[in-house]
Amino acid sequence: MKYVHGGDIYTAAKQWGSPDILDYSSNLNPMGMPLPVQQALHQAVEESWRYPDPRCTRLTQALAQWEQQRPEWIVCGNGAADLIFRLVQAIRPQNALVPAPTFAEYEQALQGVGCQVQRHYLSREKGFVPDETLLERIVPGIEMVFFCNPNNPTGCLSEKGYLTALLERCAKVDTWLVVDECFLDFVPQGEKYSLKEALSRYPKLIILRAFTKIFAMAGVRLGYCISSNTQLLTALQEVGQPWSVSTFAQKAGIAAVKVGMDSDYLAKTHQMVEQQRELLSQSLTNHSFTVFPSAANYLMFHTDRISFHQQLLQRGILIRDCSNYPGLTKGDYRIAVRSKQENLRFLEILNGIFGGADAPSA
Amino acid sequence: MKYVHGGDIYTAAKQWGSPDILDYSSNLNPMGMPLPVQQALHQAVEESWRYPDPRCTRLTQALAQWEQQRPEWIVCGNGAADLIFRLVQAIRPQNALVPAPTFAEYEQALQGVGCQVQRHYLSREKGFVPDETLLERIVPGIEMVFFCNPNNPTGCLSEKGYLTALLERCAKVDTWLVVDECFLDFVPQGEKYSLKEALSRYPKLIILRAFTKIFAMAGVRLGYCISSNTQLLTALQEVGQPWSVSTFAQKAGIAAVKVGMDSDYLAKTHQMVEQQRELLSQSLTNHSFTVFPSAANYLMFHTDRISFHQQLLQRGILIRDCSNYPGLTKGDYRIAVRSKQENLRFLEILNGIFGGADAPSA
Repeated sequence: MKYVHGGDIYTAAKQWGSPDILDYSSNLNPMGMPLPVQQALHQAVEESWRYPDPRCTRLTQALAQWEQQRPEWIVCGNGAADLIFRLVQAIRPQNALVPAPTFAEYEQALQGVGCQVQRHYLSREKGFVPDETLLERIVPGIEMVFFCNPNNPTGCLSEKGYLTALLERCAKVDTWLVVDECFLDFVPQGEKYSLKEALSRYPKLIILRAFTKIFAMAGVRLGYCISSNTQLLTALQEVGQPWSVSTFAQKAGIAAVKVGMDSDYLAKTHQMVEQQRELLSQSLTNHSFTVFPSAANYLMFHTDRISFHQQLLQRGILIRDCSNYPGLTKGDYRIAVRSKQENLRFLEILNGIFGGADAPSA
Repeated sequence: MKYVHGGDIYTAAKQWGSPDILDYSSNLNPMGMPLPVQQALHQAVEESWRYPDPRCTRLTQALAQWEQQRPEWIVCGNGAADLIFRLVQAIRPQNALVPAPTFAEYEQALQGVGCQVQRHYLSREKGFVPDETLLERIVPGIEMVFFCNPNNPTGCLSEKGYLTALLERCAKVDTWLVVDECFLDFVPQGEKYSLKEALSRYPKLIILRAFTKIFAMAGVRLGYCISSNTQLLTALQEVGQPWSVSTFAQKAGIAAVKVGMDSDYLAKTHQMVEQQRELLSQSLTNHSFTVFPSAANYLMFHTDRISFHQQLLQRGILIRDCSNYPGLTKGDYRIAVRSKQENLRFLEILNGIFGGADAPSA
């Protein structure tokens, strides 16, 4: 099995003999899983002997309230990744366009249905910021476009004006547009960058969201997509099993919505991520790394220092080597933004390897 | 969403205003979820913030020991239903053969990839027992055959001799054969009816198994398939996301294997199911229902009494109306075999509706 993602602490721990890996390779909320979500998971145990609700009725209602969208426009999945594969299998495009670099699963899912995938390489010189040249690639014959905002692994957040132009362009050539907003919850006032409000007017727009990252529940698996296209949503359910969302995911999702609506968990997350991202960014810059501006809970950077990530791994830190992303190269890495305590340990180790640059305070 | 299965207590409870539905429509082990599995689920909560192991390394090792098969021959999924869809998407047959009646997901998955599905109708007069006429339908051009043993919903267990003939026939015309053994664990000495030992010699044989039913963990979602065809297994992983098996499913699966190997949970299950199935079968026969012989933890029967299952539902009992199965008709029903206490309540209600037939003791 070719596993190309972050978060593979299982192999790392085996490889380096360190059971206590500090995982900077997967992008989960450094605040950790909210306590009410943990409690909901414990409570779910006693109901988990029976089949989960195939319609995710209560969860969908909670999400509808959270997203201010109609419940019948929402389909839940076994993580957002499950929905990426289902969407592609429901639509079965013959030609699709994906930016590069971006999340690897779009292309893998498309290839799985025999789709011809065209990559639009984002320019390193322009900081991998998507521009007009991407829009120009959306021509008749392109049946599906994936767009990740903020982009993974770059962290680049596209402005609403650009997103609207992208959407208009897709509508003009009658192309499905999947906007992956899985990391948008990490952006303060992220709603301003969402295309949700356009859903009712664009039947070929699909928005993808996940609880995996923002509520730190990656092992629970919960994602969802929103579309006003009920024909697509029906097809989406028919290309997979009826019970893809476990009892745990349904209960945890309902609890997470409540946390999101009733507590300051997200506000605190925004504050922590912003502060700690700045800390990491400055330190990497001080070490002469090229850091790309990020609006998300991770940072991509480039360094020409050889065997950087092996040196970190030997010290128990796993980061994401991005050299296998189409459009990226050797020396490109992504790290998660973690808690202050963890980041200080990370920077201490970094200084230990490269000699102490001035550590900024945070 | 067209939901055609049992276990939909969610709709039933809403429809009939009874929150305390006694669910005879889904086929879970009446012994309930083993305590060590519940404990493992509680323990999984604290690890569920991070991504699950995409390779299911420890779970696969446990399953390999349990199944006496090589770990590299096993692929786990989000329930067996997940694997049915993945198998079909990996193989993409253009023509396939399924018996009727049988588990509805085979045909739904096949139709999802545009496959032409041929049904072989099993004969009601012969008790829906598969025979030579099914084998004769396996001709060049048929690329995939699904076979459920014991069959769902009939409960019919095919003998090893017949299974071997089926396998030989498929091999002869170079056809994929998926044998769904998800209910075989309910059969005492079920191994005698398994095609596992043939895996090394038949690269187009796939065996499907699940923990959903036998360990009563349907809400956790865990199934797996076994094949010696590593090319297929690789393809199987590439048509879906890497994290389909949650942290909960992996931990619960490991605990369940231990229960299966170290305790008398399965022996007790066999005893209870056999005894209670007999009790239910006799009572239904006494009420002049036609009961089909079953080797599994459920019973299929036919009755001409009108609105039978609505009458039960009004009394808080949900059974599986099988009239929407291809090959079955109005008046065909399936009930699960449950605990003695529950079955006595069920029979009491049955007697209340139809007048007391002599209740057999058990």
